[in-house]
Amino acid sequence: MSLKSFFEPKSVAVIGASREPGKLGHEVFKNIIDAGFKGELYPINPKADEILGRKCYPSIKDVPSDVELVVVIVPARFVPQVIADCGLKAVRAVIVISSGFKETGEAGMELERQMLAEAHKAGIRIIGPNCQGVNSTTSGLCASWPLVTTKGAISIVSQSGTVGAALECWAADEGVGVCKFVALGNKSDVDEIELLEYLADDSSTKVIALYIEGVRDGRKFMEVARDAVRKKPVVVLKGGRTVKGAEAVLSHTRSLAGVDKIFDAAFKQVGIIRAGGVEELYDICKGFARLPPPKGKNVVVITSSGGAGILATDASEEMDLNLVNLPDKARSTLKEKLPPECALRNPLDLTGSATSQMYDEVLAALGAEPEVHSVVMIIGDPMSGITEVILKHFKAGKTIVPVMLGGGSVEVEERAKLQRANVPVYSDPTRAVRALAALMRH
Amino acid sequence: MSLKSFFEPKSVAVIGASREPGKLGHEVFKNIIDAGFKGELYPINPKADEILGRKCYPSIKDVPSDVELVVVIVPARFVPQVIADCGLKAVRAVIVISSGFKETGEAGMELERQMLAEAHKAGIRIIGPNCQGVNSTTSGLCASWPLVTTKGAISIVSQSGTVGAALECWAADEGVGVCKFVALGNKSDVDEIELLEYLADDSSTKVIALYIEGVRDGRKFMEVARDAVRKKPVVVLKGGRTVKGAEAVLSHTRSLAGVDKIFDAAFKQVGIIRAGGVEELYDICKGFARLPPPKGKNVVVITSSGGAGILATDASEEMDLNLVNLPDKARSTLKEKLPPECALRNPLDLTGSATSQMYDEVLAALGAEPEVHSVVMIIGDPMSGITEVILKHFKAGKTIVPVMLGGGSVEVEERAKLQRANVPVYSDPTRAVRALAALMRH
Repeated sequence: MSLKSFFEPKSVAVIGASREPGKLGHEVFKNIIDAGFKGELYPINPKADEILGRKCYPSIKDVPSDVELVVVIVPARFVPQVIADCGLKAVRAVIVISSGFKETGEAGMELERQMLAEAHKAGIRIIGPNCQGVNSTTSGLCASWPLVTTKGAISIVSQSGTVGAALECWAADEGVGVCKFVALGNKSDVDEIELLEYLADDSSTKVIALYIEGVRDGRKFMEVARDAVRKKPVVVLKGGRTVKGAEAVLSHTRSLAGVDKIFDAAFKQVGIIRAGGVEELYDICKGFARLPPPKGKNVVVITSSGGAGILATDASEEMDLNLVNLPDKARSTLKEKLPPECALRNPLDLTGSATSQMYDEVLAALGAEPEVHSVVMIIGDPMSGITEVILKHFKAGKTIVPVMLGGGSVEVEERAKLQRANVPVYSDPTRAVRALAALMRH
Repeated sequence: MSLKSFFEPKSVAVIGASREPGKLGHEVFKNIIDAGFKGELYPINPKADEILGRKCYPSIKDVPSDVELVVVIVPARFVPQVIADCGLKAVRAVIVISSGFKETGEAGMELERQMLAEAHKAGIRIIGPNCQGVNSTTSGLCASWPLVTTKGAISIVSQSGTVGAALECWAADEGVGVCKFVALGNKSDVDEIELLEYLADDSSTKVIALYIEGVRDGRKFMEVARDAVRKKPVVVLKGGRTVKGAEAVLSHTRSLAGVDKIFDAAFKQVGIIRAGGVEELYDICKGFARLPPPKGKNVVVITSSGGAGILATDASEEMDLNLVNLPDKARSTLKEKLPPECALRNPLDLTGSATSQMYDEVLAALGAEPEVHSVVMIIGDPMSGITEVILKHFKAGKTIVPVMLGGGSVEVEERAKLQRANVPVYSDPTRAVRALAALMRH
């Protein structure tokens, strides 16, 4: 069975929906409404007639129509029966948010087994239990928390709800947006491998972000990942790199973190890109989601800040990018057009007197040079008209990575304008170059 | 002469103050007013009678009273004469923001020599030229841009105006604030060494952030830095670490970046803490400004997010912190007080059902344990009352590093509350641990 019912269901029931603000059963139900889900939506709660204006049913069995997806937020001990009831309604997919299963010990493990047995019997697929749910912005289905509705090209699969939610929040804040988000939880049934396979073929997903602590079947993971990477970039943050980290993984999700060197080699072999932290995972995915892919490693740094240009240069060298000499033609064009204080080298320092017209000239000259594959464009004090200049050249297809820092409230405004126009902006030259370098690993 | 006149002048004249919004001479003059400078303030401009409500004088010589500090924003060719005029007024200190000096070639170098000669003659000290000015929040003197007025304990000395301004902006945004900021520019006279010496004895500065591309006198720098580090932490970001970075440094400020290994060894020898990027420089300084210094390397990670706890654990191991076992007493206390699903280990995972009362119990138990030197406290979904719990234990003196991520708008609110109460909050567990580890290098 395809996982489509998790992301594009025609109808959803929330078992354990609650009238009480602050309770998870309320928040998740409210988020589905607030995210603008267009299908049928049924709250299930024997103690309520209506929740947030929707008619409430005592049991899933009482719902008059078909239900494709069910979200479960009731105590663990009720869950096996709930799944059995779902079977009677021909439900296709269930997201079990409730905790109290395998992660709590032997009794919980037995409950998880019973739940799974009911699911298998009924042909129901399960995400979770003990998870932060699923968000599918393309369907307006935020069966998770916090409420994130900004559409985008990044899909997230995370063994940690919080880590995934952090990515979602940053992407929403910057207007980069999210396509699909899945918190794996105990991954009793659906796991990272199947999701990777699904998202690789999902046309609205442009890049896949994975936070994992271990994989269930290394060989299968490699096989699926290799295939996925052929279709789109896969960026992984792996928890449990160190010995104590791996011990913590065992305690957290009962996964074997495995020997990190083996993971590292495997990721390299199949072409998975590895991030060193949550923010780096975000930086890289933001680049893949928003930047045209660079055609090679040749980079030119242009800057109005000498210092920030130097930091970008250091980072480029350290990340093994190729800081090319300015091509002769561009150099002679720019020699005529730029004031004499501009250093016609790489980094190209337009100095503090830089104007948006000067950036325009430089981007035009570099845009015509096929051997310049990408441009790191640092803006110290945002100047009037700079956003329009960036947009104009950004649309022409060259990989331009805008970095804005130190411009106070003007920077905040210009940054917001660019983000609204789908141009990603970085705020630290080192982070920007690291993200750019990662794009070339795909 | 002490550098005090740059930071706490009784009177300031701005030569080149302008009525025209958008011009630097307007922005800087306006920033000094808007920052609330309490001393006498004189705009100097032969073409204006009044600027922003202040009586304007055609020349510094026409100002009726003494002037202690002068800010210069006129074309370079006029600057030597301006300095000579300042000499006639017994001015003590001049900040030359104007560019067009040494950085532009031989003619500019000659102008810089003439300017310096006039300054020496008159006993005037100079910061700049070609710099982004000075900000002294303690005096309400923002002779720089953008406008930053949030008071704090971090003083910044930067060879790059933009890099320094980025630090200022982030510190202001998060309420961490800034004490003093100096953009070195061409450092024709006052340099990083003298400023380090001054700030080491400045009682309102708690930590010194340096961005440098080279030092003029390595031996003297070492000597002064060693002394400064005895008084307070000094954190350095060095531009020009790589070969191409060093070439760019030579072009930017005509400094020799030097061999990076030598800098690295020298920094270690005198106890300077080195940052790898602008954000890391900020993260570390924020920790020094706001966190009680940890008494040792023993750290406990507490978390409501298993994943984020694992990432903090990995980072702690990699940064050579000591993830101690939970002390027996704390463990037995907590065994009674916490629900059974909490993993009583390090990282201590309170799970997604964590409440602020649970965090309170844990912090109380750990607070009583002298062998726990610091606590990395990760909050996945901010829960009601958590800010009060953090504040209570933060004030008790233990080094608590709050990390909030993935909580959406609730996180934004709680974070702002903590920041108003002078508690620093980090948003990436890896960045938080790196900052904490740096605190121990002092």
